[in-house]
Amino acid sequence: MNFVGGHILSIDQFERGDIERIFQVADAMKPYALRHRVTRVLEGAILGNMFFEPSTRTRVSFGSAFNLLGGNVRETTGIQVSALAKGESLYDTARVLSGYSDVICMRHPESGSVAEFAAASRVPVINGGDGSNEHPSQALLDLYTIEKELAAQNRGIDGLRIAMIGDLKYGRTVHSLCGLLALYNNIHVTLVSPVELAMPEEIVERLRQAGHQVVISQELTNAISHVDIAYSTRIQEERFQSKQEADSYRGRFRLNQAIYTQFCEPNTVIMHPLPRDSRADANELDSDLNQNPNLAIFRQTDNGVLVRMALFALVLDVVDQVDKHSHPVTWHHNRGV
Amino acid sequence: MNFVGGHILSIDQFERGDIERIFQVADAMKPYALRHRVTRVLEGAILGNMFFEPSTRTRVSFGSAFNLLGGNVRETTGIQVSALAKGESLYDTARVLSGYSDVICMRHPESGSVAEFAAASRVPVINGGDGSNEHPSQALLDLYTIEKELAAQNRGIDGLRIAMIGDLKYGRTVHSLCGLLALYNNIHVTLVSPVELAMPEEIVERLRQAGHQVVISQELTNAISHVDIAYSTRIQEERFQSKQEADSYRGRFRLNQAIYTQFCEPNTVIMHPLPRDSRADANELDSDLNQNPNLAIFRQTDNGVLVRMALFALVLDVVDQVDKHSHPVTWHHNRGV
Amino acid sequence: MNFVGGHILSIDQFERGDIERIFQVADAMKPYALRHRVTRVLEGAILGNMFFEPSTRTRVSFGSAFNLLGGNVRETTGIQVSALAKGESLYDTARVLSGYSDVICMRHPESGSVAEFAAASRVPVINGGDGSNEHPSQALLDLYTIEKELAAQNRGIDGLRIAMIGDLKYGRTVHSLCGLLALYNNIHVTLVSPVELAMPEEIVERLRQAGHQVVISQELTNAISHVDIAYSTRIQEERFQSKQEADSYRGRFRLNQAIYTQFCEPNTVIMHPLPRDSRADANELDSDLNQNPNLAIFRQTDNGVLVRMALFALVLDVVDQVDKHSHPVTWHHNRGV
Repeated sequence: MNFVGGHILSIDQFERGDIERIFQVADAMKPYALRHRVTRVLEGAILGNMFFEPSTRTRVSFGSAFNLLGGNVRETTGIQVSALAKGESLYDTARVLSGYSDVICMRHPESGSVAEFAAASRVPVINGGDGSNEHPSQALLDLYTIEKELAAQNRGIDGLRIAMIGDLKYGRTVHSLCGLLALYNNIHVTLVSPVELAMPEEIVERLRQAGHQVVISQELTNAISHVDIAYSTRIQEERFQSKQEADSYRGRFRLNQAIYTQFCEPNTVIMHPLPRDSRADANELDSDLNQNPNLAIFRQTDNGVLVRMALFALVLDVVDQVDKHSHPVTWHHNRGV
Repeated sequence: MNFVGGHILSIDQFERGDIERIFQVADAMKPYALRHRVTRVLEGAILGNMFFEPSTRTRVSFGSAFNLLGGNVRETTGIQVSALAKGESLYDTARVLSGYSDVICMRHPESGSVAEFAAASRVPVINGGDGSNEHPSQALLDLYTIEKELAAQNRGIDGLRIAMIGDLKYGRTVHSLCGLLALYNNIHVTLVSPVELAMPEEIVERLRQAGHQVVISQELTNAISHVDIAYSTRIQEERFQSKQEADSYRGRFRLNQAIYTQFCEPNTVIMHPLPRDSRADANELDSDLNQNPNLAIFRQTDNGVLVRMALFALVLDVVDQVDKHSHPVTWHHNRGV
Repeated sequence: MNFVGGHILSIDQFERGDIERIFQVADAMKPYALRHRVTRVLEGAILGNMFFEPSTRTRVSFGSAFNLLGGNVRETTGIQVSALAKGESLYDTARVLSGYSDVICMRHPESGSVAEFAAASRVPVINGGDGSNEHPSQALLDLYTIEKELAAQNRGIDGLRIAMIGDLKYGRTVHSLCGLLALYNNIHVTLVSPVELAMPEEIVERLRQAGHQVVISQELTNAISHVDIAYSTRIQEERFQSKQEADSYRGRFRLNQAIYTQFCEPNTVIMHPLPRDSRADANELDSDLNQNPNLAIFRQTDNGVLVRMALFALVLDVVDQVDKHSHPVTWHHNRGV
């Protein structure tokens, strides 16, 4: 695809070469994200960070990525404070807001809303999540993290063995990640979920038609015993038809250090799209994994900044100018040393 | 008036020469708003964008205008998160907040509140809307748009024929626009509204005493048939005493492409202060007008950025320095080409 | 203490030399806060201004302080829009958010939360208030103000005579201020409050063990008659067990110009942590004191910007570079002249 001046709405836009281009640019952003250098390449540019649904993490990540390129951020943080609430169409909102900024990141609770908005926008739009539909920068940062974690073991994405665990029915991040993996070769995917929260059939088919091997399971320990990546997701109790149903699964998909030690290969990387529910009865990743060097969940969020910087640099066509407008950081920092 | 260091609280501050000065500066802001050039003239300056009532559109417009001049923006977006809710006086709020910024834009739900705030502020204050009272930057962007639209037809504001349509009783934008038009010569104003929502008598008088011709009507099609500008506003159902009353007017002030083609002169410009209610039963501008080149509603919001940049440049006295601190944009843009 | 790369969580971190260092840096920030000069020393740096509890005043003060040093601000303004609401631990929130910024200012409703957050953060954290526990920058700006006000009378903090008035039980600002005063010599403290809202015994003890003189009183007029500083705080009616109880104290701790003239020495300085309740039945500082030159409440908030700039400059180790990256202001300003 031609990134310059374009929208980033769906992972379906990308071919493998596009993803490799994004990751190459993300790599080049590292000195800036690690605060070794400062770039002012987007000095004077404005990001419209339009979150019509609350999300501190994704909103701040996009905003910081734009600041790291030297740009300014104007933002909104909830639909209740918006003209949308007075019956304004997405067309009008897009025509107006695109007059206030150079690029827009938008989150909105309704599926398809961001694409509708982008069609009327006069500036590039990046989808920051539209309901259960798409959240392409999350899928990209997940795949970028997989690539980096495997590269540390001198391997590439082709041939990856991954287990996806938890709510595979409603979790848009695992759907999108499967869509990206379909572009690669010889992936082994193990899907572990309650029956009610199984991966949609069309996604399983897409993987199989791409030549990948897909195994479906309800048993955590077998599934994670021979994988490079264990990708856990949140199971929300309200997804089940009854409390009894929910209780029957309680704890069955929970990964902790003891289970990891007993069942996983020593280099298995643990991922999660976050937030991770750390309350006692959550079905997710135990906090006793926090000291495990293979817990990659915070490397994921760090990588999110790199990927989002790359998307901004690509759509605004400044990739080749980033270094030219840069200088060393002069304040104290202790990251990446 | 002397703009430097002063407040912008009401359209009553302005004489015709002041408006011409604002519009001249707004014109000079165009290369920056269109992203041909970047200026850093207000680098290091801080706008306190204090919205004690939600308004995404106006808030972001002011913030972007300040960013486009190189300044930073600190903001607040609702009265519930404010010390005002704990009984703090506007005097105290103004004394405190004016210590945090170089200029303040304030919106507040109560009439007169912004002037009271400005009296205690140590920095210039721009009224971003105080209840049903004033919203001077909206009136200025409306008149600036009228000027630009007529200039494209090689005409000036003097001699303008304008229809104002909808809720003329509560709509502060049409009140303020009438106030500005009173400064010009030989204006023909047609006022079209339900009887209950008629233009207040003192505003009609002000126009007539300025020598303008005012016609009052309840019939849309006649009113718009010989005008340069058809300025539509929103009718909120809750303004009527009964649902019956509201229903009796439903659709009577709605402008769509068919009515436009049948009744309007070919160059009649359509304006609206936005947001436009695009729900099916709204009494406003149909979306089938979106392709009409004379629909100026998004040129209005674009012009709002220019006018707000001009106000900031004037009160902070940097008009003559804007170009000196500028350089070409190096990122991709496709506006204004 | 070594400020570079460290957290600012509690006044208990400071020795007298640390405070003198902070105040010395705050003094050096004055040309920038008064807009005589602009510095870009933190250009490219990002403050994560994380307010998980609403506070316009403190949030904007921290944000403006960071902007005045040339940095960018990303922020959040309420816990309801946060992953914390979905069961995320402070550990996770800290690991994630510290990947998005160079320094974090955090406010949170729970005591101890900011220290817990800081333990997991990869960047310096400044406590912006954690429940009833600590608000160290408020204590520092209060003491800085006392120093400046006394310096205008050619005196230092040692030997200070201060009355603290109002809710001394729940008011964290007076607790923290007492903690700082304990580091100085020969302080005379008079504590005036309803019996139910008396200063906690351990704080009184701390002052006495530091060799200071503490007098406890329920009578305002005596207490303020021989002091350098009258520090008033808010009494919230809901702190009392009954309305009768509350009524019995109504007006007894209220300071106005008549009382000031009759009982105070001519140079007694009036302070308050703000917001001041200006409703008719409030028990605080009357607005007829607004013209009294010894009312220092807005000098306090102005000083807050200086102190917060100093904290940022110290933890990011740019104190010696501030002037090097500076230039004169070119826009209109009328402060500090």
